[in-house]
Amino acid sequence: MAMTRSDIGPRRLEAFSDGVIAIIVTIMVLELKLPEHVAEKGLLNGLLVPMSPKLVSYAMSFLVVAIMWVNHHALMATVRHATRAILWQNNHLLFWMSLIPFATNFLGENPGLADAYAVYGFVLAASAAAFASLRWLASTQGRDDQALARVHRTVLSKSLLGTFLYALSVPLAYLSIFAAIAIFIAVPVMFFLPIFAPPVDLQSD
Amino acid sequence: MAMTRSDIGPRRLEAFSDGVIAIIVTIMVLELKLPEHVAEKGLLNGLLVPMSPKLVSYAMSFLVVAIMWVNHHALMATVRHATRAILWQNNHLLFWMSLIPFATNFLGENPGLADAYAVYGFVLAASAAAFASLRWLASTQGRDDQALARVHRTVLSKSLLGTFLYALSVPLAYLSIFAAIAIFIAVPVMFFLPIFAPPVDLQSD
Amino acid sequence: MAMTRSDIGPRRLEAFSDGVIAIIVTIMVLELKLPEHVAEKGLLNGLLVPMSPKLVSYAMSFLVVAIMWVNHHALMATVRHATRAILWQNNHLLFWMSLIPFATNFLGENPGLADAYAVYGFVLAASAAAFASLRWLASTQGRDDQALARVHRTVLSKSLLGTFLYALSVPLAYLSIFAAIAIFIAVPVMFFLPIFAPPVDLQSD
Amino acid sequence: MAMTRSDIGPRRLEAFSDGVIAIIVTIMVLELKLPEHVAEKGLLNGLLVPMSPKLVSYAMSFLVVAIMWVNHHALMATVRHATRAILWQNNHLLFWMSLIPFATNFLGENPGLADAYAVYGFVLAASAAAFASLRWLASTQGRDDQALARVHRTVLSKSLLGTFLYALSVPLAYLSIFAAIAIFIAVPVMFFLPIFAPPVDLQSD
Repeated sequence: MAMTRSDIGPRRLEAFSDGVIAIIVTIMVLELKLPEHVAEKGLLNGLLVPMSPKLVSYAMSFLVVAIMWVNHHALMATVRHATRAILWQNNHLLFWMSLIPFATNFLGENPGLADAYAVYGFVLAASAAAFASLRWLASTQGRDDQALARVHRTVLSKSLLGTFLYALSVPLAYLSIFAAIAIFIAVPVMFFLPIFAPPVDLQSD
Repeated sequence: MAMTRSDIGPRRLEAFSDGVIAIIVTIMVLELKLPEHVAEKGLLNGLLVPMSPKLVSYAMSFLVVAIMWVNHHALMATVRHATRAILWQNNHLLFWMSLIPFATNFLGENPGLADAYAVYGFVLAASAAAFASLRWLASTQGRDDQALARVHRTVLSKSLLGTFLYALSVPLAYLSIFAAIAIFIAVPVMFFLPIFAPPVDLQSD
Repeated sequence: MAMTRSDIGPRRLEAFSDGVIAIIVTIMVLELKLPEHVAEKGLLNGLLVPMSPKLVSYAMSFLVVAIMWVNHHALMATVRHATRAILWQNNHLLFWMSLIPFATNFLGENPGLADAYAVYGFVLAASAAAFASLRWLASTQGRDDQALARVHRTVLSKSLLGTFLYALSVPLAYLSIFAAIAIFIAVPVMFFLPIFAPPVDLQSD
Repeated sequence: MAMTRSDIGPRRLEAFSDGVIAIIVTIMVLELKLPEHVAEKGLLNGLLVPMSPKLVSYAMSFLVVAIMWVNHHALMATVRHATRAILWQNNHLLFWMSLIPFATNFLGENPGLADAYAVYGFVLAASAAAFASLRWLASTQGRDDQALARVHRTVLSKSLLGTFLYALSVPLAYLSIFAAIAIFIAVPVMFFLPIFAPPVDLQSD
């Protein structure tokens, strides 16, 4: 009976996720606080040098969240029924993503502190894990569609690899923050490599 | 005459509510301010221990608002005409929900203060009461649909129980903050129990 | 030729306005900053009494913005072509509305200062004037629809009365802040009186 | 094969961009912080004079972002397939636009500092360049539509002129901040001149 189904339309799920992701990506800019005494010290020493860790971590997080937004739409386009499990896994993903501004700020204010890299890596690992779970849940719907199943498997492997690498950055940060930085650069690059084939045509919107 | 009807399309009502709820759930993260001297004190004593009340109250409020968002959509899917009464009751609900970030912040900064639990319980009770009123208004529309009316009755009882429990947490907080905490855990759990049957299929979006 | 028309679809205009209005109404809550030493002074003297001007001005502005949102939709539902003039008048309206959080904060922090009432009245007068202009522009479209034209005339009179009263509150505030408060209460009440007939059925969304 | 296309529907792209732009335009108001001691100094000397640089730069940025929003919709209405290149160029544009609140704040707090005009000019030049690239990408889609191609060429010239002028304001600011101010006024005015013909009818939304 339709009356007792717990499905929310996938379009509404997308719209709400879009709203939350748009806010996450934009409120990070509120943490770009102006340093004091810029006028006396000059542009380079008064603004750009002291702000560079914040600007770089902001740009990095903007890219990560933008990739997640693109992947989220590619994923949602394959979802026929936004079941209760998908709905709550999506809320779970948004919860971890909502902590990205906090972790970005911590990293931007403490660019020499291993703890800051560990926290940043942890939040991204949790977000990536939640994303992989959401992908896995979605993949259980289209079992009879061979081409779609193949796409889900490919992208899921990639999501799991991303999760593993981000999780690895947590202990690695205490050996060398440069190893953590290498991971934070490698994972977004991985998503732009040509082997990434987005699952379906989202044109029919 | 259609010209003098005060109805706003329920889809627009949902879209505006989605926007407000997405912002409510996300701006709470702006209150997760970094403590000072994290570098000297270490991750555990400098960040996680001092921030744990804020992180726990943030997670709790994120869950409460997410449940309200899910229920709001389930409810709106049953609404055929967004009458003036429904419209303003919805604005009334959004008003109380907009105070959740404030109450969450007060609780996160004063985890040992009974007043903070009372204020948090009061804001949630007011939100739940506004939600129950909105449910009641919606239930008056589909009187001839027996199955829908049964769903409305079931969920309305649950909303009223949630309102009662949150209202109870206000005086209880002064006897024991643990009693208030027990209520804050119990009400969300209640909404995940299998007896919760979301009213209708929202798929046809 | 359709190619050179400057129309943006009224639905997009509404969606963007909804987003801006949802953010305006929600970021005001960020100004509800907790006072210090709540724990020592108690709930009443430490929180509720010192915060009451901020809470009351927040609630008042929430109501004003909610009324504007409701009227904005009612107005947009009558617009067939979002011409360039309507588009920029709408941006003009959003500009003044975006200053409401600032004026609310100023009033909430200086509840005894005539200047604060004058600034608040000025921002609301400018918003109401921009709204009346938008209504006037919309009314020029449906000239052949007699019933619609009548609705536009009625609501436009009301908008102009609201603009006049808010403008009046600016000098009045320097005679007596209570006169300004009376106007701030009277205008929203006026919009809820039964003679307010929203122009059209927005159901077909 | 549709399955391996990387297209996201242009409507989703617009909706996400709308969300981000709505937040950008609105959070700038959060930087309009009240000066201290307004009550003692009076409205003019305590509020309007000290805040005028912030208010003027806020209004200027509001106008720039509003123009970008209008142009963004006019552009998106011409896009049939939101290819991967368009998608990421759009994210690139949103990244630079998201720095406008930061640059606005820097300018508003340092109205006599050449560096502030240079940073503001740089962020607008980068945004305008990203916009011109997006326009160029879109223009490669409708090659067979002569009228559309002509519109793209006209508006692209204008975008490139805007980019050039904003880039010019960076070195000019160090010669004279008034030259930079002249550019900041000229570019928006240019977009309102009658020779600006928005590319297509966006009515069919």
